[in-house]
Amino acid sequence: MAGGTRELTVDLGERSYPIYIGTGLLAQAGSLFLKHGLPVKSPILLVTDSSVVDLYADKLEESLAAAGYKVTTAVVPSGETSKSLEMLDELIGAGLEAGLDRKSTVIALGGGVVGDLAGFVAASYMRGVRFVQIPTTIQAHDSSVGGKVAVNHRLAKNIIGAFHQPEFVLYDLDTILSLPMREVRAGLSELVKQGLLWDGEFVRWCDEHAEQLLALEPEALGYALYEGCNIKAIVVSKDERENDLRAILNLGHTIGHALEAVAGYGELLHGEAIAIGMVGAARLAAKFGYDERIAEETERLHVKFGLPVRIPSHLDTDEIMSAMMHDKKFAEGKMVFIVPTDIGRVEIRKDVPSSWVKEIVEGLREGTRQA
Amino acid sequence: MAGGTRELTVDLGERSYPIYIGTGLLAQAGSLFLKHGLPVKSPILLVTDSSVVDLYADKLEESLAAAGYKVTTAVVPSGETSKSLEMLDELIGAGLEAGLDRKSTVIALGGGVVGDLAGFVAASYMRGVRFVQIPTTIQAHDSSVGGKVAVNHRLAKNIIGAFHQPEFVLYDLDTILSLPMREVRAGLSELVKQGLLWDGEFVRWCDEHAEQLLALEPEALGYALYEGCNIKAIVVSKDERENDLRAILNLGHTIGHALEAVAGYGELLHGEAIAIGMVGAARLAAKFGYDERIAEETERLHVKFGLPVRIPSHLDTDEIMSAMMHDKKFAEGKMVFIVPTDIGRVEIRKDVPSSWVKEIVEGLREGTRQA
Repeated sequence: MAGGTRELTVDLGERSYPIYIGTGLLAQAGSLFLKHGLPVKSPILLVTDSSVVDLYADKLEESLAAAGYKVTTAVVPSGETSKSLEMLDELIGAGLEAGLDRKSTVIALGGGVVGDLAGFVAASYMRGVRFVQIPTTIQAHDSSVGGKVAVNHRLAKNIIGAFHQPEFVLYDLDTILSLPMREVRAGLSELVKQGLLWDGEFVRWCDEHAEQLLALEPEALGYALYEGCNIKAIVVSKDERENDLRAILNLGHTIGHALEAVAGYGELLHGEAIAIGMVGAARLAAKFGYDERIAEETERLHVKFGLPVRIPSHLDTDEIMSAMMHDKKFAEGKMVFIVPTDIGRVEIRKDVPSSWVKEIVEGLREGTRQA
Repeated sequence: MAGGTRELTVDLGERSYPIYIGTGLLAQAGSLFLKHGLPVKSPILLVTDSSVVDLYADKLEESLAAAGYKVTTAVVPSGETSKSLEMLDELIGAGLEAGLDRKSTVIALGGGVVGDLAGFVAASYMRGVRFVQIPTTIQAHDSSVGGKVAVNHRLAKNIIGAFHQPEFVLYDLDTILSLPMREVRAGLSELVKQGLLWDGEFVRWCDEHAEQLLALEPEALGYALYEGCNIKAIVVSKDERENDLRAILNLGHTIGHALEAVAGYGELLHGEAIAIGMVGAARLAAKFGYDERIAEETERLHVKFGLPVRIPSHLDTDEIMSAMMHDKKFAEGKMVFIVPTDIGRVEIRKDVPSSWVKEIVEGLREGTRQA
């Protein structure tokens, strides 16, 4: 392993796995596959997307071939629409044609969409084969910890899926360099989120290193990804199947998901939507009597990272409210929010009056002054 | 519980579950759901098929409604073609429209097809909700133990699936009475199989009680289903994820699956195909030097149950051989067979020469005398 590579273990008993974070790691994929005992005789299916394939697939394929692996590469269109049962069907077919057997491995090379899709292929092909995740975005650090894999249904996002843990995750920081700036910012929003819900010290570190992070300086980025993955890993290892604690990871997601749904997927990036959602959750905290500076600080931090903190004016409040009611986080019809009680600390509130939420949404609209 | 109801536990640690076998059980479904703590507030999706819905859905719905459950019934076309991703998509949509949440239950009311399909809906809806299986065929005793759920791909059967254990299985013997005789025989073939691979005494019992079983006499049928489920439960609890031992359950399936594939699904019932396959496996035993009477006894028993023991003459030997080579049980290209070493005992042979298999297939053709 190259000097400066960080290694982190996601602790899930016998399904524990490491995350490697560093530069130049794609070229070491083959030897890592061997080290992890992935069978050379069984063909590999490499799933990637149209925006990533030309940048990184060659290097990965070469490294695997040099280690003796036979790799078939399947390319899906870039974007959320690839997370479908139709694409699952195609990839299962590609796996069968490539002769994948029960000892085979499916690799995800790409962002969160490719990770979720290829992960569900791995979870369901022959009722489950091995899975290796190679994220190429900052955002994907989130989906690379915790084993949640899924495709979308016409009526709801991420509704068809499984829990399927990877053998390991390979984070090559070099792949992040090709990300458009808007996606860098959106990805950093999710890193900051991990701090806001668990570790105030990491939030302060992000605040102090915003410039280095936005410049994708490898040392800072490597550290931040390590910390972000680590926080998520701690939470997930305490609650793998999302019975309770794991829900705190949804900080900012209640409003965020509704904004994505109403705007139509694509207008707002996920990280942008939850940035606005986190500011909303922090304002809700004030309603529950917590320090108003939590909301001010949350907003200042997101502005520093160049993230939106207001709801685009053309989105309708009633539609946003209605989209929230359909969110699958409302078990048995009650409104649930993750509410910060301090910078780096949250609680799960299952008693949030929808009138408060509506007020917050109204107050977050572009051009509206804070109440 | 009615007198005479048998209860069996499938022992899988914290995923252990009971199987109830008896008469009049559909009417008790509601109280069993309450007893097992299935949440009344969360809607239930009942999946059944076009040949079962008119016979038993009313009784089940009434019993659940009386216990306070809200049930939405989804009916799929009867037959193997319903085990598809398209049908999964429809049923997930039905679940969303019915408002199923994470605490909801999916019920399978029907044979193996409905069990496999509804089970995969339960496994993948919101990454897994509760599942209750109510088999209405003898054949389905097999798929109701072990948690294997799946749909088919154009290129291969059962290739997209999961391991998802039910909360419990409800076997109402009254539902078996409506089965066509041919399906009764095919189902009994699978019960006899459980004996042939694990319990010689149960094979002798089946032999002695063939008449009562074919007449669907409840006491005999209840006992045989109990024993069949029990044998499968013992094997599965020793090897839930099919690493090794569980493969013995595939006795007769190597040739059997190939016959189904070549004949086109529907011409041979699954139980008929594996009946022929079991005779083939027993003849293979003789090639390995085991007693020839194993094959004679296996054949006599299947004839007694009115099952086919010869390959229909219009099926091509080369096509059968080729279909076997694609079977997913041949990891890394070697031919694997489950071979009986006595009545009630088998071994896994991974060294079977394909020339022997071809001889056996030739010798099993209709109108061919045994070599």
